[in-house]
Amino acid sequence: MRECALNNTNQNELVKRFCSVRGESLAIIEPLTVEDCQLQAMADASPSKWHLAHTTWFFETFLLSVYCKQYTVFNSHYRMLFNSYYNGIGEQFKRAHRGSLSRPSLDEVLAYREHVDSCVVELLKTEVSPQIKDIIELGLHHEQQHQELMLMDIKYNFSVNPLFPQYKTSFLNSQNKSTDIKPLNFINFEQGIINIGTNADDEFAYDNERPKHQVLIHPFSFANRLVTNGEYLEFINAGAYSNPQYWLSDGWANIQNNDLTQPLYWHCIDNEWFEFTHYGLEPLNLNAPICHVSYFEASAYANFVKARLPTEFEWEYAAKNTPSTEINNHYLTPQQAKSDTEINQLTDSCWQWTNSAYLPYPGFKPIEGIAGEYNGKFMNNQMVLRGGCVFTPQNHLRQTYRNFYYPHQAWMCSGIRLAKDIV
Amino acid sequence: MRECALNNTNQNELVKRFCSVRGESLAIIEPLTVEDCQLQAMADASPSKWHLAHTTWFFETFLLSVYCKQYTVFNSHYRMLFNSYYNGIGEQFKRAHRGSLSRPSLDEVLAYREHVDSCVVELLKTEVSPQIKDIIELGLHHEQQHQELMLMDIKYNFSVNPLFPQYKTSFLNSQNKSTDIKPLNFINFEQGIINIGTNADDEFAYDNERPKHQVLIHPFSFANRLVTNGEYLEFINAGAYSNPQYWLSDGWANIQNNDLTQPLYWHCIDNEWFEFTHYGLEPLNLNAPICHVSYFEASAYANFVKARLPTEFEWEYAAKNTPSTEINNHYLTPQQAKSDTEINQLTDSCWQWTNSAYLPYPGFKPIEGIAGEYNGKFMNNQMVLRGGCVFTPQNHLRQTYRNFYYPHQAWMCSGIRLAKDIV
Amino acid sequence: MRECALNNTNQNELVKRFCSVRGESLAIIEPLTVEDCQLQAMADASPSKWHLAHTTWFFETFLLSVYCKQYTVFNSHYRMLFNSYYNGIGEQFKRAHRGSLSRPSLDEVLAYREHVDSCVVELLKTEVSPQIKDIIELGLHHEQQHQELMLMDIKYNFSVNPLFPQYKTSFLNSQNKSTDIKPLNFINFEQGIINIGTNADDEFAYDNERPKHQVLIHPFSFANRLVTNGEYLEFINAGAYSNPQYWLSDGWANIQNNDLTQPLYWHCIDNEWFEFTHYGLEPLNLNAPICHVSYFEASAYANFVKARLPTEFEWEYAAKNTPSTEINNHYLTPQQAKSDTEINQLTDSCWQWTNSAYLPYPGFKPIEGIAGEYNGKFMNNQMVLRGGCVFTPQNHLRQTYRNFYYPHQAWMCSGIRLAKDIV
Amino acid sequence: MRECALNNTNQNELVKRFCSVRGESLAIIEPLTVEDCQLQAMADASPSKWHLAHTTWFFETFLLSVYCKQYTVFNSHYRMLFNSYYNGIGEQFKRAHRGSLSRPSLDEVLAYREHVDSCVVELLKTEVSPQIKDIIELGLHHEQQHQELMLMDIKYNFSVNPLFPQYKTSFLNSQNKSTDIKPLNFINFEQGIINIGTNADDEFAYDNERPKHQVLIHPFSFANRLVTNGEYLEFINAGAYSNPQYWLSDGWANIQNNDLTQPLYWHCIDNEWFEFTHYGLEPLNLNAPICHVSYFEASAYANFVKARLPTEFEWEYAAKNTPSTEINNHYLTPQQAKSDTEINQLTDSCWQWTNSAYLPYPGFKPIEGIAGEYNGKFMNNQMVLRGGCVFTPQNHLRQTYRNFYYPHQAWMCSGIRLAKDIV
Repeated sequence: MRECALNNTNQNELVKRFCSVRGESLAIIEPLTVEDCQLQAMADASPSKWHLAHTTWFFETFLLSVYCKQYTVFNSHYRMLFNSYYNGIGEQFKRAHRGSLSRPSLDEVLAYREHVDSCVVELLKTEVSPQIKDIIELGLHHEQQHQELMLMDIKYNFSVNPLFPQYKTSFLNSQNKSTDIKPLNFINFEQGIINIGTNADDEFAYDNERPKHQVLIHPFSFANRLVTNGEYLEFINAGAYSNPQYWLSDGWANIQNNDLTQPLYWHCIDNEWFEFTHYGLEPLNLNAPICHVSYFEASAYANFVKARLPTEFEWEYAAKNTPSTEINNHYLTPQQAKSDTEINQLTDSCWQWTNSAYLPYPGFKPIEGIAGEYNGKFMNNQMVLRGGCVFTPQNHLRQTYRNFYYPHQAWMCSGIRLAKDIV
Repeated sequence: MRECALNNTNQNELVKRFCSVRGESLAIIEPLTVEDCQLQAMADASPSKWHLAHTTWFFETFLLSVYCKQYTVFNSHYRMLFNSYYNGIGEQFKRAHRGSLSRPSLDEVLAYREHVDSCVVELLKTEVSPQIKDIIELGLHHEQQHQELMLMDIKYNFSVNPLFPQYKTSFLNSQNKSTDIKPLNFINFEQGIINIGTNADDEFAYDNERPKHQVLIHPFSFANRLVTNGEYLEFINAGAYSNPQYWLSDGWANIQNNDLTQPLYWHCIDNEWFEFTHYGLEPLNLNAPICHVSYFEASAYANFVKARLPTEFEWEYAAKNTPSTEINNHYLTPQQAKSDTEINQLTDSCWQWTNSAYLPYPGFKPIEGIAGEYNGKFMNNQMVLRGGCVFTPQNHLRQTYRNFYYPHQAWMCSGIRLAKDIV
Repeated sequence: MRECALNNTNQNELVKRFCSVRGESLAIIEPLTVEDCQLQAMADASPSKWHLAHTTWFFETFLLSVYCKQYTVFNSHYRMLFNSYYNGIGEQFKRAHRGSLSRPSLDEVLAYREHVDSCVVELLKTEVSPQIKDIIELGLHHEQQHQELMLMDIKYNFSVNPLFPQYKTSFLNSQNKSTDIKPLNFINFEQGIINIGTNADDEFAYDNERPKHQVLIHPFSFANRLVTNGEYLEFINAGAYSNPQYWLSDGWANIQNNDLTQPLYWHCIDNEWFEFTHYGLEPLNLNAPICHVSYFEASAYANFVKARLPTEFEWEYAAKNTPSTEINNHYLTPQQAKSDTEINQLTDSCWQWTNSAYLPYPGFKPIEGIAGEYNGKFMNNQMVLRGGCVFTPQNHLRQTYRNFYYPHQAWMCSGIRLAKDIV
Repeated sequence: MRECALNNTNQNELVKRFCSVRGESLAIIEPLTVEDCQLQAMADASPSKWHLAHTTWFFETFLLSVYCKQYTVFNSHYRMLFNSYYNGIGEQFKRAHRGSLSRPSLDEVLAYREHVDSCVVELLKTEVSPQIKDIIELGLHHEQQHQELMLMDIKYNFSVNPLFPQYKTSFLNSQNKSTDIKPLNFINFEQGIINIGTNADDEFAYDNERPKHQVLIHPFSFANRLVTNGEYLEFINAGAYSNPQYWLSDGWANIQNNDLTQPLYWHCIDNEWFEFTHYGLEPLNLNAPICHVSYFEASAYANFVKARLPTEFEWEYAAKNTPSTEINNHYLTPQQAKSDTEINQLTDSCWQWTNSAYLPYPGFKPIEGIAGEYNGKFMNNQMVLRGGCVFTPQNHLRQTYRNFYYPHQAWMCSGIRLAKDIV
């Protein structure tokens, strides 16, 4: 079998990268108990165990079952159990019930991972075709997306427990040592025709970032840092959650119907504000960026301060014109901005809601083949977020990366970057 | 009182226009019984009586109560009863219960109209300020929007009645005389930087059409006419309503959750297709444009034929480059295209779903003052439709007009214009 | 044709009674406008127009269509449109949408009544069979039930209108002249084996009152009058609507989920209590019986005063041993008790929730034939109410009459009779 | 402290019994993994871990915290976390989210059990007051109820997993060896005044079985055994799930709204019937009793065969007049009847739906004190089941035992005993 013939140096790199990324998923569940790995406190927040299985299913279904003739599936039920939303593959186990599966056990899922990993590594030892490389790359980026989801979901799944469980305890409590913070500084950008997206052949990008195309940008200014918890608190204290004037109509309905009076993880206890984090319940750090806000909250806050959210094109333009020195600092909560004047917190703190709906770029084509349901079918009623956050794997990001969520969702690490028209 | 001092020629024009537009609303209920005027078969489809009262409330609240010092309100309860969604004005009677108000009676509502009309006319006899003119213009366009809504809502409210009531009986049944129809012809448009929207001071435009700004357009082609019922029937016959591959994820959920198998007003009776219209149940005219489709249906159909929906900018560009000779033909169902080659059916048939989300233009500013809730707060989760339809008042349209609905909605007269990338 | 042959004296009585009862339904809509007759503010509260049509449909479907060979239906669509719940007859128009039918108009429904009435009268001029008499009797009692429903539904349908429409204006306002009221007096009843229900051949009774059977009663005491608004107010003022201790588990869930803090038609305006009535909004008469309470409220109140609700058997026993001189006083709101010591307010004020579930009597048999769905299939999750109320037609009641509603319902005229164990 | 003084022989019995019952709960989770113990696939089906904690909480809250002065609670959060529905104790963690608690872990819950058990045993070593004995007895019966619930919930929680997990594998597969079965034999019972319930001081009974009181019974006949799967299959094959004529109105709505076409755990695979059991998916044993039917299904089946369900009084009467030799056979699925003529399957197979609503007996008084919410507040909208089932602990049953569920529920082991009037 040709695919199973031998050797070449590049593969070694690919094998290394494969093993490294796959290993990161296991590292995430290190601090968790078996019971923690099964939690699903809302339909959106899948169990860690499910993520471990689903990312494995991806390689089994789109790589091994297609390109490895002698491959036999680990368990025929998994095709349905761990299919997320690929109608082309067939039926899916009901999303909201992923937490109702005690079998396969975590141990069985880990064995599934080992089985698939060793088959993939075996396959990669041969001379691999470009198609195989492509699906490996897609699978690894898919895995990294799920690594971020795992951290989001663990946080949410822990948050409903009145015991406020800690995912990690090693936090240095830097939050409370935060220094003074200066008011927002708005940086001006000129009008221009700019390139958006990518055609790159040599480095990975999702279909939704393609093709590279020109966009006309109008003059705008862009906040140097994200909005802080302290700034957002002024919005709350001004009575914003009981005043429809700042809110989109759907947003106002959302906070009314769900009795929302504050961001998702905030708690006011005896008149003091706390925030649920991966380190348990922590005093609110007023200088750290507000995170876990919905688009509705971000948009209402922007109205409150007579600014607006940037478009995704403005964000990409600003990012491409900012020297990037950001490194994720290994905390799982965003930290105070490092600069009071320069643009920062682009990718190392919170995703930033843009005022752009998630829609196809001109000339968009979904991935060919059975993985083609990857992005296109979600281009409806969602808003684009740009940047990256403290949960995002270090090498997963690009300036062209388009993240997207429904306007009411807030369990991802989403913050607020302000922009303004220049008139 | 200054506002009530006398005379000037322009007013006569304004008074005439005011009376003419206000009269059109009454003409719409001409064929209806008192009982018909109270129907509300779903939350979206308000009673005709409510529309008559609400459009009057608009002039009372934003014009007379502000600019006419000696004005006393007709009935103090109406401020709440006929407020649609203006939180700035105060509480609103629950939308879904508008059909549960037998009092005020239709007669009382008509008396309310007369009262407000005569006060407005009296006010307009004096020298009117630009602000007054502006609010009159806004009020008249608002009234025209509601005239279209009245026709939409009457159709829906009648459609749930198994007796299939007829709103009008004078239909010439031209539907069945339709001639052969040629395949779609796609017209090419070049890349360019074009003006979108308007800054016009001299003619009316909503805030959401402003300001005029430049947009970069990529080369595209634009279908000469709308998709027909016959063409859409092929989509149905190909099993599209049971095949997820064509559908957006939310769209597939929508048709599954609501057991949809065909467009809103279609009925298959003994293997023949009929369509509910203002003229009762009619045999489906295969050559007339498909209408009352949701964005989900429009988008899925476009996928099915390997085309796409145009952006709202492409639509505006194409419209501005097409000599417009369209006149609404007084039918209440769209008719077969007049040309097999030229672009037609832009404004005289069905609104056309675009692939643009309803978002603010760069530099958008809501109307100043208490009417400022008019458009901005709906800029979320809705898609733009362009054009106009058989329900739209003749002089209500502009090439810059932006209509908008949620992707699942279909009770407006919404059709499908296809576009394609040129690559 | 035999059924249409002529004459005999008994019929004249039956014709008179038929015309009289049918006429009462028309008298009820006398004060209503055409628009009022179409209101349906909740699924349970059907339009008056629908009641007028449905009671006519009953005679058409179960009498004329069966026993009158040459009868042709008035309109073939009505079979479905005005079928309430008879699956044996076929499909039913969706209950919650009865208010969405403007056609047939009220005039057409009145014509339908005339058509059916004249055919029935024609039929009754002949020698009528016992089966025909039976179905006429059933139809007339059915009509009287709907007369009470019409008054209940009109009240509810008006109540959601902030204008608080008046059904009648002739009210003498006796409410405010009420005299002092003495505390409840409990009358003792001995243990015994009593007859419950009826086997009567000579007078009408529903199937659910049959057959007569023996029941063993334990000693109990029975309140002389109904609980008053004033007494119920103490329950409210004691914080009962925020204290789970008095409530059934389902009842507590019901008031929590619906944010209930007071009975259905009560309004607290500027610290004064009002009650919505057929005469509009009226100051609460503290000495009149509380009405429009749910079983949950009745049961919680009984707990609060350390009493209980009677069983339906205790109620029937007490009623049969009380000389009945009650005459409905033509008010549409219940009035203060006439006696401070004797048992009164049995049938002339409010229905009285019992602590008996609505279940078949031993030996229960549903009516034979197509009207057999009348009662039996509702014997689930409902509680029996006994007595009668100010909305009930004078000659509609019997001591064996079993009314029944779901525990959460309160739009019927339901009050509280207390009982106690004797130990 | 008096309660902690020493010795007396009776206690040893009580301690033994306490340890034995508490141990049974642990035996139930023996075959389960840690992950299994956390499952909650619907709000009604709590995790095994939660049951283990809640039954412990019961002793901590109602016994140790009240009667053991030096007792300190194991974890102060547990008071809320493991409170089921006792409003008198305070807030409760949301029922539907019990499966969302990974902390405390199963190990911590087991430690909690040990802590409380040793404190209870310590307390019981002293001379114990009657109050303490009573609360111990109540707590042990409460624990036994939860043991049955654990088996019910495990079955349900496993049933949603397409892998059909096995709780036990040791099943002898007797199902398939079943012998022929004779038609139902109806045993006649005479009219009489009988004693129902109990006043026993010397043996345990819940408050809802008290007081003993007389009930008049009409002549009836009582089926010798339960309805079998095979008999129920005829009902299905007769099209009963698509024919409203057999169903209560609410029952028909229930099967329509939930698309029910068969009992809860039945599966039709390639035209063969299977049943999900604690032993996994098993071929349907046609001679075994139908179980896991709702009251709606039981009632409809009875209608289908022109019989009815017994009242709870008839059931108790029949049971008291039947020599009981039944012993639960350690299977977790009900087996074929042992006798074709004598009354059997009273307590060893399935609970039997009665046609009696769950209501208080004459003279009912809830338990005094903080455990008083035990039964009374559920006396609404539920139907009584009598008997016992294969999940019920051997020594937990009494002929006066009243079990109760909502009519739509079916995850308990509920079967059908038929009765008939004798006329």
